[in-house]
Amino acid sequence: MAVYTEVSDDDLNAFISAYDIGDVVGCKGIAEGVENSNYLLQTTKGPYILTLYEKRVNPVELPFFIDLMEHLARTGVRCPVPVMAKDGKALRTLSGRPAAIITFLNGMWPRRIEAWHCLELGKALAELHVAGKSFAQKRANNLSLDGWKTLFDKIDASAAQDVETGLPNLIAGELIDLTKLWPKDLPVGVIHADLFPDNVFFMGKACSGLIDFYFACTDFLAYDIAVCLNAWCFETDGALNVTKAAKLFAGYESVRPLSPAEKEALPTLARGSALRFLLTRLYDWVNTPAGALVKPKDPREYLRKLKFHRSVTGIAAYGLN
Amino acid sequence: MAVYTEVSDDDLNAFISAYDIGDVVGCKGIAEGVENSNYLLQTTKGPYILTLYEKRVNPVELPFFIDLMEHLARTGVRCPVPVMAKDGKALRTLSGRPAAIITFLNGMWPRRIEAWHCLELGKALAELHVAGKSFAQKRANNLSLDGWKTLFDKIDASAAQDVETGLPNLIAGELIDLTKLWPKDLPVGVIHADLFPDNVFFMGKACSGLIDFYFACTDFLAYDIAVCLNAWCFETDGALNVTKAAKLFAGYESVRPLSPAEKEALPTLARGSALRFLLTRLYDWVNTPAGALVKPKDPREYLRKLKFHRSVTGIAAYGLN
Repeated sequence: MAVYTEVSDDDLNAFISAYDIGDVVGCKGIAEGVENSNYLLQTTKGPYILTLYEKRVNPVELPFFIDLMEHLARTGVRCPVPVMAKDGKALRTLSGRPAAIITFLNGMWPRRIEAWHCLELGKALAELHVAGKSFAQKRANNLSLDGWKTLFDKIDASAAQDVETGLPNLIAGELIDLTKLWPKDLPVGVIHADLFPDNVFFMGKACSGLIDFYFACTDFLAYDIAVCLNAWCFETDGALNVTKAAKLFAGYESVRPLSPAEKEALPTLARGSALRFLLTRLYDWVNTPAGALVKPKDPREYLRKLKFHRSVTGIAAYGLN
Repeated sequence: MAVYTEVSDDDLNAFISAYDIGDVVGCKGIAEGVENSNYLLQTTKGPYILTLYEKRVNPVELPFFIDLMEHLARTGVRCPVPVMAKDGKALRTLSGRPAAIITFLNGMWPRRIEAWHCLELGKALAELHVAGKSFAQKRANNLSLDGWKTLFDKIDASAAQDVETGLPNLIAGELIDLTKLWPKDLPVGVIHADLFPDNVFFMGKACSGLIDFYFACTDFLAYDIAVCLNAWCFETDGALNVTKAAKLFAGYESVRPLSPAEKEALPTLARGSALRFLLTRLYDWVNTPAGALVKPKDPREYLRKLKFHRSVTGIAAYGLN
């Protein structure tokens, strides 16, 4: 739940006048997304999303994200497209923040995940990876091994200990293990890197598109599947739903088959992905002041997933063979 | 910032199928309003507001609010209208809550109040009062004198003391004074009772309508003006802006002139209105758990307004004569 920057009517009207998107008839803050301020902008031409980029997004990196969305949409990936202003620029300034208007993507994200969602997700993810092949720009994944170490150093050990006894030692050990185990030579390309259910829209039984590309980067394609495996295929009791996992892989491989090396690396990539969200959630958990508007997510959910992937002895545990 | 009830896709689709409003293409929680869960529902026919009534609203009273909105819209007041389902009912159930779909009102609420807003507000408020004359239903104001006493009894005195030393005594004294001073015989009708800036929409320089009638009740019409005086005419430094107050009254009286008795009662009504919002804010302040999603509003803002109105010796202080 976001909306950090309050936009005045005068600022908004001046901003909108740079575009050819009709007259504003409404602008309401959306209670979704935690990284940026999002408004649903209603104009006489229809609905748009107005995004103000908050401090977690580095302004220098914004052109990468904007260009990527444009590239993906041109290549046939269903995703929001930045709207160019009359001067041809999509990235502007509003209320002192970088801001863009993007098209409204029809659909809703699924609140209760069923196996067929995972099949559709797999297809959409592979289509994204294929479309990303022709995108020339690169952006390092600042939330991979090095980034995890930097983040871990910033987390107060005694606060982490309060979350679960032994947690700092467990994470330190995991960083050592993953540094040894981490793959060196898998297919690389544009990954979404944050494809949680609230970033995947559905209409009826079909995926209508992907949103929120602000963690997108250049990394192992199979790492993106590991992120989805963690975000989509576990039940609330902490157990992996192997049917969902198998659907995810089947959907993905119907568009882009995985190499044997990619499959082999999955338990390690899934451990890494679990550690990544454990660390960012843990950081937010121990650094969010009491009474903050945004409730931090429980890091222990990802600790459980991490422990599961450590116990995995082969990819059959994911319904793969 | 609200959205308390999360609606599943299946529940939503079943709910929408009872209406003739096209197919759903999006449904996003709105970060506005604190009493109910509001979603901006985008369909192939356009935008609508989906409201789920949360626990602060008594379900028994919902027909009053729904019927009032219908009556006002029929009488020419610009406000959202409840949408009837195919069976003719506007009030239904969604995710275990009473729920309604209401039309989307064009416009935005003003973030920075200027004097001309107050003129338009005054006109719109008087138009509401005139239109309400022909509304047959009645609803007592449960947040007037008796309600304030009940609410005050529920507030922990030592917690109130922590907000400002002497506050419990001040409120107790105020309740005694207002019981003596409160008018008995002013024009009565439907009042909005909560007409803060976020409930009044503007397009360009004109008021495009009023929203959020869920505190509406039958009470002194002039009390509604006192609520607006407190909510619209004070600057952030705590001072009354007499120009804004004069515009509010001028706008109101251009549609419905105030009687001498109504004018005379304004300092008392303004004290009462300040006490009402002081009490509800104080109650929320001392009863909101740390870390809650909704940040309670500072009750001291209304304590300052209350003290101002106590010091007023005549209506000239409000720019009236």
